[in-house]
Amino acid sequence: MKRATDHPSVLDHVAGGGLLNRRLLLQGAVAGGGAALAGATMPRAARAQGAIPEWATVAGERARGYGMPAEAEAHVQRAILEPFADVAPQFSLSGTPHHRLRGTITPNGLHFEVHHGGRPNIDPERHRLMIHGLVERPLQFDLGALERYPMVTATHFLECSGNSLFNAIMPDPMQAGCDLLHGLLSNTEWTGIPMNVLLDEAGVKPEGRWLVATGGDGPSLARSIPVEKLMEDGMLALYQNGERIRPEQGYPMRLLLPGFEGNMNVKWLTSLWATDAPAHTKHESGEYTEILADGSSVKFTFAMGVKSVITHPSATMTMSGSGLYELSGIAWSGAGPIRKVEVSADGGASWAEAELQGPVLPRALTRFRLPWAWEGAPSLLMSRAEDATGAVQPTREAWKARYDASNFLHYNAIQAWQITANGEVQNVYA
Amino acid sequence: MKRATDHPSVLDHVAGGGLLNRRLLLQGAVAGGGAALAGATMPRAARAQGAIPEWATVAGERARGYGMPAEAEAHVQRAILEPFADVAPQFSLSGTPHHRLRGTITPNGLHFEVHHGGRPNIDPERHRLMIHGLVERPLQFDLGALERYPMVTATHFLECSGNSLFNAIMPDPMQAGCDLLHGLLSNTEWTGIPMNVLLDEAGVKPEGRWLVATGGDGPSLARSIPVEKLMEDGMLALYQNGERIRPEQGYPMRLLLPGFEGNMNVKWLTSLWATDAPAHTKHESGEYTEILADGSSVKFTFAMGVKSVITHPSATMTMSGSGLYELSGIAWSGAGPIRKVEVSADGGASWAEAELQGPVLPRALTRFRLPWAWEGAPSLLMSRAEDATGAVQPTREAWKARYDASNFLHYNAIQAWQITANGEVQNVYA
Repeated sequence: MKRATDHPSVLDHVAGGGLLNRRLLLQGAVAGGGAALAGATMPRAARAQGAIPEWATVAGERARGYGMPAEAEAHVQRAILEPFADVAPQFSLSGTPHHRLRGTITPNGLHFEVHHGGRPNIDPERHRLMIHGLVERPLQFDLGALERYPMVTATHFLECSGNSLFNAIMPDPMQAGCDLLHGLLSNTEWTGIPMNVLLDEAGVKPEGRWLVATGGDGPSLARSIPVEKLMEDGMLALYQNGERIRPEQGYPMRLLLPGFEGNMNVKWLTSLWATDAPAHTKHESGEYTEILADGSSVKFTFAMGVKSVITHPSATMTMSGSGLYELSGIAWSGAGPIRKVEVSADGGASWAEAELQGPVLPRALTRFRLPWAWEGAPSLLMSRAEDATGAVQPTREAWKARYDASNFLHYNAIQAWQITANGEVQNVYA
Repeated sequence: MKRATDHPSVLDHVAGGGLLNRRLLLQGAVAGGGAALAGATMPRAARAQGAIPEWATVAGERARGYGMPAEAEAHVQRAILEPFADVAPQFSLSGTPHHRLRGTITPNGLHFEVHHGGRPNIDPERHRLMIHGLVERPLQFDLGALERYPMVTATHFLECSGNSLFNAIMPDPMQAGCDLLHGLLSNTEWTGIPMNVLLDEAGVKPEGRWLVATGGDGPSLARSIPVEKLMEDGMLALYQNGERIRPEQGYPMRLLLPGFEGNMNVKWLTSLWATDAPAHTKHESGEYTEILADGSSVKFTFAMGVKSVITHPSATMTMSGSGLYELSGIAWSGAGPIRKVEVSADGGASWAEAELQGPVLPRALTRFRLPWAWEGAPSLLMSRAEDATGAVQPTREAWKARYDASNFLHYNAIQAWQITANGEVQNVYA
């Protein structure tokens, strides 16, 4: 076990505002070299004392069939995005409370939702998936047949292309938690059938360059998908974190297109129609198209951009006094694995590289962490992610300059959190 | 995209009883080379036909705060192990239904339980963790202080040392699913504080070679842990699959000792007492000690042995006709990553190497898969895992020879499933 005194360099401040070397905490420097860490000690733990609480004096509850979170955690819920209550019947959204989660996996109960027509109540015995159009053999599958097919397992994020929309369009930064601000983003382990196995069986004809994927919900949400993406890593997802996918995520089956914007990962998938051109459905033309600053529209933006958010601390939280903290956040990119996340505590004047929690998987959330000595003074926290292609998050100013003022899709600008002198954490544009 | 006709070798049968090359299915050979695969075609998918079910004609339910599985999946529950209902007040166990899960992550609601005195209802605000005994600075932590500490995230299995006990002790194989037979095993992503950070802060004295970990439940379950294990990769786990750990798994905090038998990963952790020798608590001496064939007892067996189970198909299931299937199962070892899983369809006469789903993580469940053409004849399926240390699963006969007939702990023998001519899958000793 290494101690700080063996490695004096780990005591270095690596950037302004109290950012410390990322290896500091895990090397046990806190205890071994505590005296040398001016202003960067852990919150003082009280001296040990004994007391037997009442729950240790009685028998508890027996084992049960399906577990739920502790009663004291009942407030950990998805946040319902109320402003969209009247877009269409049952149009509704809920965001993952990232400021209450750690790690990288999103538990199934907290995976975000975007429903264009609500969550249908599907009888899995009667659900069918058709593959038709420009194929040699039009096919229809039920769940029983699919159970015998080869499967793969992979952890991937899903992000609505409208995630972080309030930061994109509101003139003043909204004071809300990461659930409302950045919650249309989740990360789970998916298991299902590689789409190339199913498309090979149907025999997509050479002129079948696109497949129009349609959901079995009321609005029949439909998107045109390039055949190359489906063949490369498309999945017919049947399981989510091991169990059957939840109704909110497309039970009994959804399309998974790693890295592509959320709505293309069609839920309740019922039809794949091979065509020679995109169908220009209302969802791809009318609802999920970005308008640029010059008035033209982008058709299509499939992959989600590189992005990161510090979740601890983040807006709506309050610091618990000055001293040592671990900054923690999540980073992701639709283009591949995260290569680097830099953190600033002085509003971008200086940056330090955060520790990435391995395994760093492509198109999955990556947790980053960095020790920080908060001196009790105002600080401006930021994180800036870079992916394996070299793409880096833009500033909000640069992002806004690219688009028409009305656009709220594909917002991936740097998030800034203002820490006030009294420890409040606020959402700011910087 | 590759087709079987480009790679005639993938059509080879690689072992007896219909086992096929593990690359077969993912290379799209089914469609491209279907005609060449005598007796190994996919179940025939029906030709496409349209019909609009009633759920696609109405608006669905709106977004909600915390999601639950589909109503049609209400039968996917943990199995309560009834035979142990009267061991002690509230002693109870429930097993993960692995035959209904795919992938590697266990959703939190289905993580197995073993409670010696039930699940306590702990007030997180009043829960404390003491570190005391042979330490420089006795310390007591509350949840608020711990939130500022550095954290790590890692996916690990937990397995009760009594897992698979029915196979160990019943003279005739019990006909039950993987929930009752092998369900005291789960795999989740844990996030918490490295134990070496906390022990360094307390300053364990050189003579403090053991720490006695005690839970805050009624029975105060206690186990003695070597300090080396805690310093190497011990974790004070606070989060499970991203959210706060569940009451059944130790809310608000548990000890995590990757690879070590389940009960040492003390739930509801409230005390770590540094001592110069193991405490020989009743749990380590009386309840979790194996008796060998010569009457002596093993003290201590910390790490769980290398093990695997085919989950699809497995006992209580019925085959849906002859033809192509994907065999699928899970493998794990307390000593490190899985190196290899071999599968036999002819009762061990011949073996074929299964495909391992990456990333293959140390001390975590690894999913393995292999295509199989079931010819509709009786077959005897087995899987045999090998870990990175070279350890291989024993036969049941070899395992039984080592222990006293009464021992049911640390059972890791090869599981055999008999497929009858009419497609029933049965638990057998072979």
